[in-house]
Amino acid sequence: MFKVTVVGSGNWGSVAAKLIASNTIRLASFHDEVRMWVFEEKLPSGEKLTDVINKTNENVKYLPGIKLGKNVVADPELENAVKDANMLVFVTPHQFMEGICKRLAGKIRSDTEGISLIKGMEVKKEGPTMISTLITKQLGINCSVLMGANIANEIALEKFSEATVGYNQNKLAAERWVELFNTPYFNVTAVEDVEGVELCGTLKNVVAIAAGFVDGLEMGNNTKAAIMRIGLKEMRAFSKMWFPSVKDNTFFESCGVADLITTCMGGRNRKVADAYARNGGKRPFDELEAEMLQGQKLQGVLTAQEVHEVLSHRGWLHMFPLFSAVHAISTGRLPPSAIVKISDLKPRHGQLQSML
Amino acid sequence: MFKVTVVGSGNWGSVAAKLIASNTIRLASFHDEVRMWVFEEKLPSGEKLTDVINKTNENVKYLPGIKLGKNVVADPELENAVKDANMLVFVTPHQFMEGICKRLAGKIRSDTEGISLIKGMEVKKEGPTMISTLITKQLGINCSVLMGANIANEIALEKFSEATVGYNQNKLAAERWVELFNTPYFNVTAVEDVEGVELCGTLKNVVAIAAGFVDGLEMGNNTKAAIMRIGLKEMRAFSKMWFPSVKDNTFFESCGVADLITTCMGGRNRKVADAYARNGGKRPFDELEAEMLQGQKLQGVLTAQEVHEVLSHRGWLHMFPLFSAVHAISTGRLPPSAIVKISDLKPRHGQLQSML
Repeated sequence: MFKVTVVGSGNWGSVAAKLIASNTIRLASFHDEVRMWVFEEKLPSGEKLTDVINKTNENVKYLPGIKLGKNVVADPELENAVKDANMLVFVTPHQFMEGICKRLAGKIRSDTEGISLIKGMEVKKEGPTMISTLITKQLGINCSVLMGANIANEIALEKFSEATVGYNQNKLAAERWVELFNTPYFNVTAVEDVEGVELCGTLKNVVAIAAGFVDGLEMGNNTKAAIMRIGLKEMRAFSKMWFPSVKDNTFFESCGVADLITTCMGGRNRKVADAYARNGGKRPFDELEAEMLQGQKLQGVLTAQEVHEVLSHRGWLHMFPLFSAVHAISTGRLPPSAIVKISDLKPRHGQLQSML
Repeated sequence: MFKVTVVGSGNWGSVAAKLIASNTIRLASFHDEVRMWVFEEKLPSGEKLTDVINKTNENVKYLPGIKLGKNVVADPELENAVKDANMLVFVTPHQFMEGICKRLAGKIRSDTEGISLIKGMEVKKEGPTMISTLITKQLGINCSVLMGANIANEIALEKFSEATVGYNQNKLAAERWVELFNTPYFNVTAVEDVEGVELCGTLKNVVAIAAGFVDGLEMGNNTKAAIMRIGLKEMRAFSKMWFPSVKDNTFFESCGVADLITTCMGGRNRKVADAYARNGGKRPFDELEAEMLQGQKLQGVLTAQEVHEVLSHRGWLHMFPLFSAVHAISTGRLPPSAIVKISDLKPRHGQLQSML
């Protein structure tokens, strides 16, 4: 029997718990109960968030109005929440993961399998640092990932959606994750390409910044589609440069083209970049972020910066005109209109294409 | 020296003539003059359309406000327009092509290369009938295609866009077509996959109908992205079933993912399908088409019908749940909401995936 704990309880974590709980109660091979580790907070009413979740079956703070299922148990003690589990679902802000791994090291069952739903792995000078790799290294467990076109609130309302599990060799574990997440309205497909799936989840945010510039410049659907396509191609080229095992097919999955479409149509990266272009690049990103996102940082701008560093370190910058342009524009070195001057870089872009 | 004639002068044909004329005047290997065959019409002013085009350099009826270039010469006589050319660009409504080919057979230079910009090849019971194949057979010339995310009016305004040339073996000819069409704002890439490129241009309209249903049901960006992704996968599977030479990479080009995005965001197929779903499928497509499109027929509904016939003839219907659903919904056999019940067909969809 498999026992699941969800590590994290934000908007997406709560929706994940709901999806999982609807399956554990239905399937014989899983314990009904799903533990959910909740970073304890006091609500304005004076009550503890965990108490309210356990009383109402609702995460009133991060997913109000949606029943999680009676078999979801909120637990404020991280070590206690995971101690009986052999399937761990990680879905916290990515900056918390290093600390969580340190606290959990040596305290989990040896037969545990992990899965990361965290979008936002870091790209360091030496190359991309995958969160699934961090989890594997620090906890000594196998770790898959689940990514896709997943706007949490739409899935909470049971609107049709898809997701991709990326796994590494252990096909049986991947099939179990698919069983655990898949519902009639949430279709999950597994591909043996953990790096490809995880990189899609991060790099799409850079393309969304580019798409936002096009929107802000009012260039129309044609240009936007072209920029998204070039972005998808650079995502694929970047991923394959670091991990030759990455598969082309991954980019046809939900984590690839579908998540890219969703992120470039809605989402905050697109939105702030749109405002940046409308202001002619005259108001810095920092300022617009503070105004529009209540102090949250834009993932896409940070990732563009990281991608720039790693490409420049390797001397590969010229092969990624779109990624390079996003960084140059977002740091004020080029005007927003430079995003559609990719053609100036065509011979170099051709070089990239010949590598694929 | 190469001499170009554009056969057709509608909205897209006029933009094509403009792109080409800007290059023939610049490049030494082409004659400056570009002939454009115009189906003669009398304008409300009493003047002939060809006379006005030749006087003003503007196609006042189909592309008003845009200068085509002084080296574009409108010619109402088809046979005369093509007689000196050895590069023929076909860009007429597809129902005219059979008649045009019959008129031209035996009357063109033996060293002629053709290219078709016509989206809308037919799928007959025996399989797809490509327009490029029709041209090759009837005129005895090699024929490439050019497709992509190409909203004519946006390209006329010189907004950044891309296109794909699909060619068949003759790489030198393909490079010449790229030279002829490519501009700083219109980036053209050639791929050796004429069938893949041409099928993209047709099948995307079926997916756009599905996307319109999702919009009309107000299912959100997540669901729409999922439906577009499944559509792209079925486009690829369908193409590869008929032409094993079709390449996965083609679907990453402008003719694939980019054209799909443009067509599912704007375009009349999406628009009428949206209205159909909003009316709960209670007003037939014919009626909405007549009301919204002044009697034009929707390409997507026709293609869905043709695709349905050919798949049913071969017994392959169950492998294409999205294509099948579009046909069933547009003919009133299923409600619009069936478009997001693809998951019911998942095992069968899985069968398709295992073929890829």
